[in-house]
Amino acid sequence: MAQRKIDVVLDSVRRLIRIGATANLVNLLHKQHPADLAQVFAELGEKDRSASFSLLIERNTKLAMEALSELGPEGGAALLANRSAEDIARLLQELPSDDAAAIIDHLPEPLSASVLELIEKRPGDEVGELLEYEEQTAGRIMNPKVFALSEDMTAGEAITTLQGSRDVEMVFYLYVVDARRHLVGVVSLRRLLLVQPSTPLKRIMTTDLISVRTDTDQEEVARQVASYNLLAIPVVDEENKLVGVITVDDVIDVIKDEATEDIYRLAGVSSDERVFTPLGESLRKRFPWLLVNLGTAFIATGVVWLFRHTVSAWVALPIVMSIVPGMGGNAATQTLTVIVRGLALGELTWNNARQALFKEIMVGVGNGLATGVVAGLAAWLLMGQPAIGLLLFAAMVINLFVAGTAGTLIPLGLKAMKVDPALASTVFITTFTDVAGFAAFLGLAALYLRGGGHPG
Amino acid sequence: MAQRKIDVVLDSVRRLIRIGATANLVNLLHKQHPADLAQVFAELGEKDRSASFSLLIERNTKLAMEALSELGPEGGAALLANRSAEDIARLLQELPSDDAAAIIDHLPEPLSASVLELIEKRPGDEVGELLEYEEQTAGRIMNPKVFALSEDMTAGEAITTLQGSRDVEMVFYLYVVDARRHLVGVVSLRRLLLVQPSTPLKRIMTTDLISVRTDTDQEEVARQVASYNLLAIPVVDEENKLVGVITVDDVIDVIKDEATEDIYRLAGVSSDERVFTPLGESLRKRFPWLLVNLGTAFIATGVVWLFRHTVSAWVALPIVMSIVPGMGGNAATQTLTVIVRGLALGELTWNNARQALFKEIMVGVGNGLATGVVAGLAAWLLMGQPAIGLLLFAAMVINLFVAGTAGTLIPLGLKAMKVDPALASTVFITTFTDVAGFAAFLGLAALYLRGGGHPG
Repeated sequence: MAQRKIDVVLDSVRRLIRIGATANLVNLLHKQHPADLAQVFAELGEKDRSASFSLLIERNTKLAMEALSELGPEGGAALLANRSAEDIARLLQELPSDDAAAIIDHLPEPLSASVLELIEKRPGDEVGELLEYEEQTAGRIMNPKVFALSEDMTAGEAITTLQGSRDVEMVFYLYVVDARRHLVGVVSLRRLLLVQPSTPLKRIMTTDLISVRTDTDQEEVARQVASYNLLAIPVVDEENKLVGVITVDDVIDVIKDEATEDIYRLAGVSSDERVFTPLGESLRKRFPWLLVNLGTAFIATGVVWLFRHTVSAWVALPIVMSIVPGMGGNAATQTLTVIVRGLALGELTWNNARQALFKEIMVGVGNGLATGVVAGLAAWLLMGQPAIGLLLFAAMVINLFVAGTAGTLIPLGLKAMKVDPALASTVFITTFTDVAGFAAFLGLAALYLRGGGHPG
Repeated sequence: MAQRKIDVVLDSVRRLIRIGATANLVNLLHKQHPADLAQVFAELGEKDRSASFSLLIERNTKLAMEALSELGPEGGAALLANRSAEDIARLLQELPSDDAAAIIDHLPEPLSASVLELIEKRPGDEVGELLEYEEQTAGRIMNPKVFALSEDMTAGEAITTLQGSRDVEMVFYLYVVDARRHLVGVVSLRRLLLVQPSTPLKRIMTTDLISVRTDTDQEEVARQVASYNLLAIPVVDEENKLVGVITVDDVIDVIKDEATEDIYRLAGVSSDERVFTPLGESLRKRFPWLLVNLGTAFIATGVVWLFRHTVSAWVALPIVMSIVPGMGGNAATQTLTVIVRGLALGELTWNNARQALFKEIMVGVGNGLATGVVAGLAAWLLMGQPAIGLLLFAAMVINLFVAGTAGTLIPLGLKAMKVDPALASTVFITTFTDVAGFAAFLGLAALYLRGGGHPG
């Protein structure tokens, strides 16, 4: 977090806004890279962001829209939401259809529908088509402008075709299709340069190529691109016809978003919250999670209530009892995190799930024994009551066994029900360890007292 | 987690190993993509993995080593560790120097040193040089084989040079250097094709290019590649001489590793643990975190002990008291997660940290009021004691204020001390909310009793 280049820009922008030097402000903004502009916009207050965006749009519409697109679909849509549908439809023409589609999808209704209607009236509209695919699928994030060569061409003809095409931005793989646009091969630009111009593409193309279908989940797309080290992946329809391409920069966004989603869900935060989500929205988004937590806390409290006579008969019990659910919660969080990340990275599968469960149970019991001994001895020494130490030891072993089991089975169960396993989150898992922890510790204490044991 | 293509392969591999059909096994392995082979190796048991790797190495050394490299540096090093230094040094020649360097770095000593010594004796060694850069910097992960064109060339000469070069794998940006190898520009392969062969490179190259230095942190490299949508980024030394290139596939690995590291650290798991880390190692790695937790749990217990007379005078207190630290811990985890992720994504900076702190405090107080009302009313209704409800409400507001403050300031403080903010982790944050929660609730209860209030 050293002084960044853009901090300097940001300071100047703030100063120019303050003194009202709009001409200088536009000149400064105009010189920035879209990604830097997006960062500047993100860090300005809402009013300043909107004002400087409007200024820039008059000077350089394309740059302004590129920066807006870099803000992500939510941020981008928010910056457009106070404009007319006609205006938005016009501005979105500056963006690739996949980015435009994502932004339309995040506009408030009925604005979103009006913009879409306007865009669909245009000849050759692609945005409307993209929005027909399910969210978070390859079809939704692909770029339908994909450069394809006919399999009957020679290398020389392919180069000429390429030289004549203007719209194509990042060409590194050239996909080859047959007369009916079925994807049949791929050839790299470099390979085209290396062979004689008269060589037929059929002879130099690779036919063993990796593609995804329009309905492939975006997480799966990201996994393929990452594991095969691709720069782009072609998207085909159910008849294997080439309909689009997803480039690695979009895949990076998917990987980052999916990681953020997992981190957030594990902690009980909505996946679309960010540091500078407005206060009211953050409050509203976090409250339901805390309320669920509160419910589970009352369940645990109910367990303690069942043992209220035991608790009031032995004052050492309430003093140390919260150690057991606490440690169980921590151990369960460790297990849950390893399992959820293992599922996300594709390392954990149905094939090896039993092996993982066995391991997590053994880790739970093992660490239950180890930390149980430490906790038991410490409680014995501090409170001078060996019975408290022994109860603590036994309850910790039981609860860390529960932690390992629940921490593995709950996310796997959610996955089996096709629910995101990260939603298991610490919140739900700790309900188990809270209940089991209090029940084990106080239950054993009650048995001890009933068996004639004496409170210290 | 549908049946994957590689599950079929994996089943066959297991069957062929079981019946000892080594010739068929090698044939099957030989036909796989390195990334798929890596997945197969990862899911086999240690003995089978080692055996099938050894078989494949005799048939196709390059493929075997590429698959090994896809296992990551730890996994790759483990698979080589039982071979002689000479053998390893020979095998590593099949890999790009950055991958070889990473693997050597993860070999056990003294094997690692012996291998390095052997490799450094070779003429034109690059691996040894890479290992001289700090871990997790651009220098360590770059590929020193970078294709560069001289600024005095024409487009036609550039294409001829490119056609004559064999080693260059992924060329999409062609970097241009001056006579002393200072990086002066970049030109895309496509642009080369579009201009007249006689055009000087100087006329068509972009001079405003983004590069990183050998000592740039890999996380910063990833951020630049991601935010500027690059396919590769050139690496220069302190004199701006071109020394290497980092491609987007390496950046994806960095992004995934850094996300895993953050997720793990927040949950108190070592960043190098995976689902199938051996049992003993997982036990050893998680134990210290649990022990730290146990220490903090005893600190919280100490607070309850201070109020032991209050607790034993009013039986409703021990029944509900764990709700307060529990809710504080959850709220703190939410804040911590948003802050840590904001820092990782570069959205939170020193510039706007105060704004974030203010917001998190307000969210804490706001949700403290909201959940406090619910909890207070519920406790009143369930226990029939209005005083318990009121105490719970007040303690929750105080503790969620502490949660918002500690959840923001602790990771920011760590960042200021140049420590990974994710290390703040739930473990440390919840110490604050546990202590504050018990102290607020029991402290207020003690005051209430001392002021003449009656336990229900």
